[in-house]
Amino acid sequence: MRHEKGTGMKFILHQQDITIGDLDRAYELITEQKSLKDSVIHLWPEMFLGGYPLQDIVLDKSFIKAYQNTLEKIHEHFLQATESNQYHFFGGIDYKLTDNGLPAKIYNSVYLATPGEGIKNIYHKRLLPNYDIFDEQKYFSPGKNNCFVQIENKNFAIIICEDMWHSTTHSIDPIEQIKNEMQQNNIQVDGVINLSASPYSLGKRESRIKRAKYISHQLDASFFYVNSLGLHDEILFDGRSFFYDGNSVTESSLFMPQDLEVNLKEYVPKNSLPQPSDSKNTWENLFSPRIDKDQKKLMPLSEEDFEEIISAQMFAIKSYLEKVNIKKITIALSGGVDSALVLALAYLSNRRYNFGSIEAIYMPSKFSALESYELSKTMCDFLGVRFYNYPIKFLHQNLKIGFNENFNQELLGLADENIQSRLRGNILFARSNQQNSIVLNTSNKSELAVGYSTIYGDSVGALSVLGDLFKSEVYQLSEFLNKKCESLLGGNIIPKGIITRPPSAELRDDQKDEDSLPPYERLDFFLEGLLSHQVTAMDLENYGFDPEEITNTVNLLKRSEYKRFQFCPIVKLKNKSFGFGRRVPILKK
Amino acid sequence: MRHEKGTGMKFILHQQDITIGDLDRAYELITEQKSLKDSVIHLWPEMFLGGYPLQDIVLDKSFIKAYQNTLEKIHEHFLQATESNQYHFFGGIDYKLTDNGLPAKIYNSVYLATPGEGIKNIYHKRLLPNYDIFDEQKYFSPGKNNCFVQIENKNFAIIICEDMWHSTTHSIDPIEQIKNEMQQNNIQVDGVINLSASPYSLGKRESRIKRAKYISHQLDASFFYVNSLGLHDEILFDGRSFFYDGNSVTESSLFMPQDLEVNLKEYVPKNSLPQPSDSKNTWENLFSPRIDKDQKKLMPLSEEDFEEIISAQMFAIKSYLEKVNIKKITIALSGGVDSALVLALAYLSNRRYNFGSIEAIYMPSKFSALESYELSKTMCDFLGVRFYNYPIKFLHQNLKIGFNENFNQELLGLADENIQSRLRGNILFARSNQQNSIVLNTSNKSELAVGYSTIYGDSVGALSVLGDLFKSEVYQLSEFLNKKCESLLGGNIIPKGIITRPPSAELRDDQKDEDSLPPYERLDFFLEGLLSHQVTAMDLENYGFDPEEITNTVNLLKRSEYKRFQFCPIVKLKNKSFGFGRRVPILKK
Repeated sequence: MRHEKGTGMKFILHQQDITIGDLDRAYELITEQKSLKDSVIHLWPEMFLGGYPLQDIVLDKSFIKAYQNTLEKIHEHFLQATESNQYHFFGGIDYKLTDNGLPAKIYNSVYLATPGEGIKNIYHKRLLPNYDIFDEQKYFSPGKNNCFVQIENKNFAIIICEDMWHSTTHSIDPIEQIKNEMQQNNIQVDGVINLSASPYSLGKRESRIKRAKYISHQLDASFFYVNSLGLHDEILFDGRSFFYDGNSVTESSLFMPQDLEVNLKEYVPKNSLPQPSDSKNTWENLFSPRIDKDQKKLMPLSEEDFEEIISAQMFAIKSYLEKVNIKKITIALSGGVDSALVLALAYLSNRRYNFGSIEAIYMPSKFSALESYELSKTMCDFLGVRFYNYPIKFLHQNLKIGFNENFNQELLGLADENIQSRLRGNILFARSNQQNSIVLNTSNKSELAVGYSTIYGDSVGALSVLGDLFKSEVYQLSEFLNKKCESLLGGNIIPKGIITRPPSAELRDDQKDEDSLPPYERLDFFLEGLLSHQVTAMDLENYGFDPEEITNTVNLLKRSEYKRFQFCPIVKLKNKSFGFGRRVPILKK
Repeated sequence: MRHEKGTGMKFILHQQDITIGDLDRAYELITEQKSLKDSVIHLWPEMFLGGYPLQDIVLDKSFIKAYQNTLEKIHEHFLQATESNQYHFFGGIDYKLTDNGLPAKIYNSVYLATPGEGIKNIYHKRLLPNYDIFDEQKYFSPGKNNCFVQIENKNFAIIICEDMWHSTTHSIDPIEQIKNEMQQNNIQVDGVINLSASPYSLGKRESRIKRAKYISHQLDASFFYVNSLGLHDEILFDGRSFFYDGNSVTESSLFMPQDLEVNLKEYVPKNSLPQPSDSKNTWENLFSPRIDKDQKKLMPLSEEDFEEIISAQMFAIKSYLEKVNIKKITIALSGGVDSALVLALAYLSNRRYNFGSIEAIYMPSKFSALESYELSKTMCDFLGVRFYNYPIKFLHQNLKIGFNENFNQELLGLADENIQSRLRGNILFARSNQQNSIVLNTSNKSELAVGYSTIYGDSVGALSVLGDLFKSEVYQLSEFLNKKCESLLGGNIIPKGIITRPPSAELRDDQKDEDSLPPYERLDFFLEGLLSHQVTAMDLENYGFDPEEITNTVNLLKRSEYKRFQFCPIVKLKNKSFGFGRRVPILKK
């Protein structure tokens, strides 16, 4: 493919948050008139037209029709646009349809839009990830061929996301295929263009850049990496598109819409420099637990990690609200650290994005300490968040009387504990209905793992903000947030007392989490190991821990699957999270 | 592979319900001493050792260790068993491990156990289904080769489940490969052995047998089909293992543990008979909607369909209870047809399987008709089911007062409707906690589709019995059940009044379902079409329906995804169901 024109060449790497299935918005952005003097190559992420992951929508006949119409409209637009010097590479779907308009083969592919020529499908993704949250082999057929494109005397190799990852789980290596064809046909390439929809997780940025540098040095070419942006249920795309010119990296922001402009300079081969090592993408490496076996602790999160996590959570909250077109948040405050942290994050999100308003509801039962009220109220007053107090003692008492009267059996023990939590769930969702607000869930990953929560009670919500953070990390993040926001707010965003008091569900007298569970620091170490599927109970015993405590933890993890099955989407922050990427049967031995 | 012995040859096709991950039970069954004179070939289903679908358990290091140990134990057993003439083919996993004991490659495979020789992995499944509920390409690598086994001068070709289904979604056809090798090497085959884990859905039996006959005639060989049994979360395996000798079909029962004994007779080629046609397994055919476009109605369910459905539901209830080791069921009765049908099915299940006890709770609000009480009580009295009446008027009133007092805003409209439903959810689950009972959900597929239910309210439960039946089918099934059980019970299992009164949620005065929704017969036609992804809103308009009504239905379907996300497992009865096999994002345009 050959396109010739002048010499000056700019690239714009576009990362924009579009709702899945919003074809009109993608059309608008791609065809927006740009009044730029220079030739510009616009790069849009994988599946920019359509969204990622579309899941079954990709199979829907209505969607397919709308999709083909939109492609036609884009084609027409660029066919007419003869005067322009703007090229576009965008990710989209290439359908091969049956006579009935149903999909026979579907490709995750790249379109090139050229002024005066319209659009052309130029590349089919070769490596289709099918692990963890990924299901691409369910929908897509793999491509087979390399794609080289020449524009104004510059040559580019085109790939999509996973194609750049050499892996033992894939039978081919697209980068090797590109290299081979370059050598055989004596092709020089000025840049590798990778259109991606690469989900955020801690540490992902480093491995992307490392791998891009490796490929860049292998092929003696610059590397363009343009990534998606936005929350799509539990999956969060971070953007951070970048350009590597063989020497340095120019990078877009984290969790921000941005159109990053870069100039294609002559690539200077750096063969004298030590080449970055090839990072293997095995299942084993991808999901290795973040534990320090010597210290017997979770790997500590760095300040950079916390900064990333905060950005991720603030952005996720905003992106969710935007996509459901709701402007209010309701949060249940308990006086504990989880709900306080969720409120702090929602507050900071609203401060940054100004999406609307937040209200907090405190719902004490007869087991709630006065301190819980005071700490919750103090926090809301300090932040200017509307605070409501709705005691459930009376309702709780009524329910208990009803049990005596109607079942002739007193409500006691766990049943009596859970009912308090569920009454709160009721009030919270009645308020959500009344206000048309979104309820943010306040559960953490430790609770979720061992089922230390009440189904339809404290586990309710539209979105879980902390469900990928262990309780010990919730504490650390709270401390970090206090330090970070101190000068901004002139005080602690989360009252000290909330962080220092021992954690309790306050569903019976003198209840403490540690009555039922190992101390969180130890529990979280167990869980991170076990959840990776790579650490066994026997391994934990060999590290010197108490076998009974380990067995209890393993059993709690196994038996709480039914609760997680009915849980809301969890904002994904780690390589291994609860949710769609972790699939374990409820009914099992 | 060649094993020689005497001549008499029996086959036993074993279908047994084992909990996923129960390696000990599978070991016991396979190695159980049989005192049979004749040589016997025992056939056990796909993944009999381990369970299907294991999902991520297959990757778990603890499980892998236990698995390898069990294989070793079975090997030892058969190595010692020199005097026996019992052969076993069983489905299981073939792991290729890394040095760390983690899986590098995993095969869905067949083991052959031979007395005096131990066990040997002889076959890797070639076609790995990856559509709808299936995720096999996520975990397994495909095999490449045919497998022929000779035992006592008889030849067998071995395949696993999907291998028998020629399909446009797979690039190879194992049956063609077997045929080619037979022709090239002049091999005769006495039987094709297919170990399966084929989920139940309406009409599945006919297509299995049709396809088996086709293959049998193609290869001039008998066909052994042994299938799994049991509920595994939402997936129900029906058993119905069968043997086709070229002439007639010998079949195991539906939803019953059974060891079907058959004799391998000489296969008589029936080339003179018209050969059954090849049934194509395209995505389009697999999930085509059950609608009659001319009549503009759902395809009617036959008496046989209803019999199957009843067996499926009774078995599912029993299998769930057994696997969680709970012996009680709690059901919320409303006086409507859905909850009455669930109670009837649970009652019949308990009558057949005798798992324990059932109780019903009626929870009237101030909008409940007296008739609802009377009908519910009549039903329970007639069936001898314990009936409780727990009025929620007072709790509801208290909650409303609390809203006035604490939020200074009256609880009205939808918020006030939903709170009644959620109070019932609370009482139901408090009772479930108190009694250690399982709550059966009472939602139907129509409600689920349009979100006509309250999240954390009437949508609660451990298992959905009716979630794959449209409301119009719920009525038909209720009528059918009344007719079927009349002589058994000497009256209607579901009071006539429950079936004839107009459906209502009874959450406000004079509320009727048809105030908010199209009549169910029409709605269900829309839904079956739309849910298949093969019928568009435009198609429905072209059939002559009201565009506004169609648009409303499409929008309700789209906007209720968040409710289905948090819903319990639904017993799968149809080819296209809500649940794991239907994946649609919450956040979408």
